[in-house]
Amino acid sequence: MTTLSAKVMPIPTDTLTVIIHSSMAKNLGIGRGERVKIQGTKSASIALANISSTLVAMDQIAIDSTLAQEIGVTEGQNVTVSYSQPPISSQSIRALLAGKSLDKEMYYAIIEDLVSRRLTDVELTSFVIAQLFRKLPMEEIEYLARAMADAGDKIDFERTVYDKHSIGGVPGNKVSLIVVPIIAAAGLLIPKTSSRSVTSPSGTADTMEVLAPVELEPAEFKKAAMRAGGALVWGGKLGISPADDVLIGKVEHPLSIDPISQLLASVMSKKLAVGVNYLVVDLPVGRGTKLPSEEAALELANDFMEIGRRLGIVVTCGMTYGSQPVGHSVGPALEAREALDALSGGGPVSLREKSTALAGLLLESSGQAPRGGGKDLATKVLESGKALQKMREIIEAQGGNPSIRPEDIPIGTQVAPISSPADGYIVEVNNSSINAIAKAAGAPVDKGAGVLLHAKVGYNIKKGSLIMEIYAEHSSKLADAISLSQKLKPITVEGMLLRRMPEVA
Amino acid sequence: MTTLSAKVMPIPTDTLTVIIHSSMAKNLGIGRGERVKIQGTKSASIALANISSTLVAMDQIAIDSTLAQEIGVTEGQNVTVSYSQPPISSQSIRALLAGKSLDKEMYYAIIEDLVSRRLTDVELTSFVIAQLFRKLPMEEIEYLARAMADAGDKIDFERTVYDKHSIGGVPGNKVSLIVVPIIAAAGLLIPKTSSRSVTSPSGTADTMEVLAPVELEPAEFKKAAMRAGGALVWGGKLGISPADDVLIGKVEHPLSIDPISQLLASVMSKKLAVGVNYLVVDLPVGRGTKLPSEEAALELANDFMEIGRRLGIVVTCGMTYGSQPVGHSVGPALEAREALDALSGGGPVSLREKSTALAGLLLESSGQAPRGGGKDLATKVLESGKALQKMREIIEAQGGNPSIRPEDIPIGTQVAPISSPADGYIVEVNNSSINAIAKAAGAPVDKGAGVLLHAKVGYNIKKGSLIMEIYAEHSSKLADAISLSQKLKPITVEGMLLRRMPEVA
Repeated sequence: MTTLSAKVMPIPTDTLTVIIHSSMAKNLGIGRGERVKIQGTKSASIALANISSTLVAMDQIAIDSTLAQEIGVTEGQNVTVSYSQPPISSQSIRALLAGKSLDKEMYYAIIEDLVSRRLTDVELTSFVIAQLFRKLPMEEIEYLARAMADAGDKIDFERTVYDKHSIGGVPGNKVSLIVVPIIAAAGLLIPKTSSRSVTSPSGTADTMEVLAPVELEPAEFKKAAMRAGGALVWGGKLGISPADDVLIGKVEHPLSIDPISQLLASVMSKKLAVGVNYLVVDLPVGRGTKLPSEEAALELANDFMEIGRRLGIVVTCGMTYGSQPVGHSVGPALEAREALDALSGGGPVSLREKSTALAGLLLESSGQAPRGGGKDLATKVLESGKALQKMREIIEAQGGNPSIRPEDIPIGTQVAPISSPADGYIVEVNNSSINAIAKAAGAPVDKGAGVLLHAKVGYNIKKGSLIMEIYAEHSSKLADAISLSQKLKPITVEGMLLRRMPEVA
Repeated sequence: MTTLSAKVMPIPTDTLTVIIHSSMAKNLGIGRGERVKIQGTKSASIALANISSTLVAMDQIAIDSTLAQEIGVTEGQNVTVSYSQPPISSQSIRALLAGKSLDKEMYYAIIEDLVSRRLTDVELTSFVIAQLFRKLPMEEIEYLARAMADAGDKIDFERTVYDKHSIGGVPGNKVSLIVVPIIAAAGLLIPKTSSRSVTSPSGTADTMEVLAPVELEPAEFKKAAMRAGGALVWGGKLGISPADDVLIGKVEHPLSIDPISQLLASVMSKKLAVGVNYLVVDLPVGRGTKLPSEEAALELANDFMEIGRRLGIVVTCGMTYGSQPVGHSVGPALEAREALDALSGGGPVSLREKSTALAGLLLESSGQAPRGGGKDLATKVLESGKALQKMREIIEAQGGNPSIRPEDIPIGTQVAPISSPADGYIVEVNNSSINAIAKAAGAPVDKGAGVLLHAKVGYNIKKGSLIMEIYAEHSSKLADAISLSQKLKPITVEGMLLRRMPEVA
């Protein structure tokens, strides 16, 4: 233990960091990323040590302004600093790397320190990568899910809660905007929380935001859902499962990984937080999705059902075709238009089929439809116009314009038609290429940007006929998207020249 | 691309970081940990993006002072900032996580970005942990070793270079201080670089520092080694394989891991950097070491020999008994005393045996001794006093006092005798407990602190007889070490009570 003089400053790291002089660190036996206990006038805190020989003097310790305020320390004040043993969280992560089993308390310790910014990036990454190479046993996934849920806020709807979740990976998946009003129109409560895009051209929350505000506070969310029987909001404002946001933002997204056990725990932690009782999970299968084969999808479906049983949530999984975009539109405004079309009885058949199939599984869970009869009931609700009416109620409850029509939704004014390079049948519409083109065009930040497909797999088309349009709000982004489209050739017509050598510049 | 106003400030991260406002980051499509290209008046640079909504305004970018100077940017100046695609290094690390093979260029890109602080902690950790779960193929270990060596400085001795390396893990391993002078006395060049303690009570460099300066610049190191025929210096001042220091400091030490393929590449990169031709590797085997079984040691020995063949270094491995400390002393000054004793013909038999055995392997490699005859020759050199004389030359060449005697070396004046709790044979001297006690006593920062064993495995002792002494420079640390010793009971006498229930407070 030693006494150092506080140097209060903003420290721009994501963790609770203090900075100690390298010689002092050596004396105290403190290495980079190890913990120190600092005692202020109000309270003590554990923080992560960073080492520097330039930013602080030998007798100083730099403390982040927020932390300094919390523990009651002002500039120049003396604080006592001592080495703190690696906490249980840190020890547990090392044990996980060594292939050992962790118990419930260990998962709670990891998540607690993660949420309070007391895990280093090195520890956080280790925790995720360990799961990438070795899936956790189901028992431990349960602990992790509970720890994640309990580390955040919870919302109690005091009623049976239904929910729908897609593991994602397929573009244009605006299905939730059709499933939620169908279920709510059937009299069930479905307060859905969604994410914004992490890597895709539009997350469900981004698409819904075209129709109504989605950044609701917990109380507003509860009120809106109770009033309309359903809601479609962004989960990020609710304080539920904050650990998930950290894991995705800091590790999973930058590395483009999504370990199965972490996926299961993360999804279910959010369901626990809002008290879901019945859940249908959409598992898109196929080329370019997270699930390349049906076997992989089957295994994940079994995992979802088992973790559901452990957590008291009845899970039904629906495997869906995911080798090309869902429907014809990709990008927030284009997708919102298409969803309204589908609710009005129009739109692509495949979109209505997928939406009613998934909604049907929930209706069967609830007992409102007999096993095998859910889709028919969902279709009936959709065709009756009740789902559209319900969607207008949901939009109104969230503060949007309930009488909005598809054509009222502004879409990008910069449009580029893309035509077929050959006669023949379309054999592929490549998911990742469509994603990349829609993002180059400006989605999801530019709500009106995206891609509208005029042809999908199986269409028989003529050379020169329109196969897709790119929409953008800015001409420079449109140009980027066009050139990317020429490079990626997202739509494959059987018989077309895939490449020529030498290439045409 | 956009133009932002520079806010020049010290950013206390270990990576090349700039900070952008969260809304601007969203507009530019830049996520945390992604790369941006910033153009200054002098040059452009790739940096890692951190996101904040408080530290910078919407139209500002915070740039670390050092980086700002490098690219030619002053406070308030405009800089153009654009999103930069993930570099090859980042893509390669993701490929490694996906189980793919990397080629030579990819390893070079990873190490180059690592050394220039352009890898995030998340990427760095992923790179190491991937190897923990899946050992790299030998070909890739070769690429990695070469990339690590080429990323740092090199020293050319213009002669055949001999070297000795221990993978560590056993306390009191002052063997290098005896091997190096034996080899040099035999007329071979052995310019040994060593590490300081990372977790142990004394690294070879810490022990040697008791006898002579070890922080030599490259030119001084070369001069000293050429003059005396051998040297024992700290590698950290030489600029060789800087990637290794980063990997150990940031990932391996904090997580207590040491993946085999990274170990092989790291060790060999340092040998490549100083042009080693013949290398003997000490592999301590046994309880509490890095190699719990002889099978594990055999596998690692084969790996070392193969990576040596690929890199043009003749490697001989010696497996040694590692289940208890080497010799009787642990801690810098105590070990330096013991090494001088051994060179003078005294000291523990086991220490002289291990040292001459390893030195013998090098003498056989050089052709100076026939196969199987190296140890005899090494013993002859040691007993002749030539090794002691050579050690004095090495000490002098490095700037130490060549006439130093063991008893001249100051050791801790605070001493606590520990006596046997029972009659009987000693069956265990626990490595990690001895390490912990020596560190609690103050080693390696307090050079005179450590543990002196008066009995080792197999000794028949009486209850109450002296089995070890703890040395410290400060009474408070001595008290800590004594209480830790009472708790850990580092020496087990067969028949002694291991624990009583209820415990005595």
